[in-house]
Amino acid sequence: MKQVLIGVSARHIHLSAEHIEVLFGAGYELRVLKELSQPGQYAAKETVAVVGPKGRFDKVRILGPARPHSQLEVSRTDAFALGMNPPVRESGRTEGTPGIKVIGPEGEIELQEGVIIAARHIHFHTADAAKWGIRDKQLLKVRVEGERSLVFEQVIARVSDQFALDMHIDTDEANAAGVTTGDVGTILSE
Amino acid sequence: MKQVLIGVSARHIHLSAEHIEVLFGAGYELRVLKELSQPGQYAAKETVAVVGPKGRFDKVRILGPARPHSQLEVSRTDAFALGMNPPVRESGRTEGTPGIKVIGPEGEIELQEGVIIAARHIHFHTADAAKWGIRDKQLLKVRVEGERSLVFEQVIARVSDQFALDMHIDTDEANAAGVTTGDVGTILSE
Repeated sequence: MKQVLIGVSARHIHLSAEHIEVLFGAGYELRVLKELSQPGQYAAKETVAVVGPKGRFDKVRILGPARPHSQLEVSRTDAFALGMNPPVRESGRTEGTPGIKVIGPEGEIELQEGVIIAARHIHFHTADAAKWGIRDKQLLKVRVEGERSLVFEQVIARVSDQFALDMHIDTDEANAAGVTTGDVGTILSE
Repeated sequence: MKQVLIGVSARHIHLSAEHIEVLFGAGYELRVLKELSQPGQYAAKETVAVVGPKGRFDKVRILGPARPHSQLEVSRTDAFALGMNPPVRESGRTEGTPGIKVIGPEGEIELQEGVIIAARHIHFHTADAAKWGIRDKQLLKVRVEGERSLVFEQVIARVSDQFALDMHIDTDEANAAGVTTGDVGTILSE
């Protein structure tokens, strides 16, 4: 049985070092609230507001460390509330995506792009992937059990020796499947 | 191919005749905004507010006609916003479910029970069910295609000569699957 722990991602934002300085002040360093399952990644104590055409969210958690490009990840439900229609994308693939206004305590930015609905995916350490015969970018099917059991298709395998084994879905997907962080999914054989 | 049209249900409320009078005044009759896919069912022009422990929704659509018992149907996402944890239930099975405050223009009620997350289901006319060999209450698997394709399990078949063929899912499920009303699902053979 190829079983993976599920982590549910609520809306969150990754910021570039430059944007952190605009929003929080020159030389500002994010503070760690909580380590995440992926090595080196953390939820920061800091939050920002994001403002779309129809709605806003006042406390969007920043995930650190800084990245090359800022990126806001929302669920489709969140996107409707903001009045936006971002595409489902793999993290980092933000070309052609909509932007949004981001407000921090010391400044604000108008992102030109970077709003996505994150494509569901599984992080594999290279050793886990090798053991199970899974290739980077492979599309997997993952079954979750329960009163709302379902089989997610189009689950992207992401393989790196920097990753820990973990499946990431958003809140819409978690709610549709009736699962929460710490529940388990089973990768189906084709 | 056993294909069914999908209808996405946003949060809505069914009201008893007695509760309609409390909320809108003695002798009040709901007005039809739009006929729904199920014969005789309609979205009313009227809305109510619902107030949970942590949040409220100000414009919840009433679906008519009046029913024996009032029932609020929300998504899991909505339930979090209200600060509630209702169960996933078939429509009408409200015993032991949480209640909620409902506010209309002429009065308010404290429902003692009736808040549910609707279990995904397919309405079959008796003739459709017979043709496809499907029994009332049977649990089905339904695949939806697309960039977020998935297979819903635990889809309840509801068979009646009062029903028209139609699959109902909530907004979390629709968003997780990347579908909207009018898209098509395929019932899988076991």
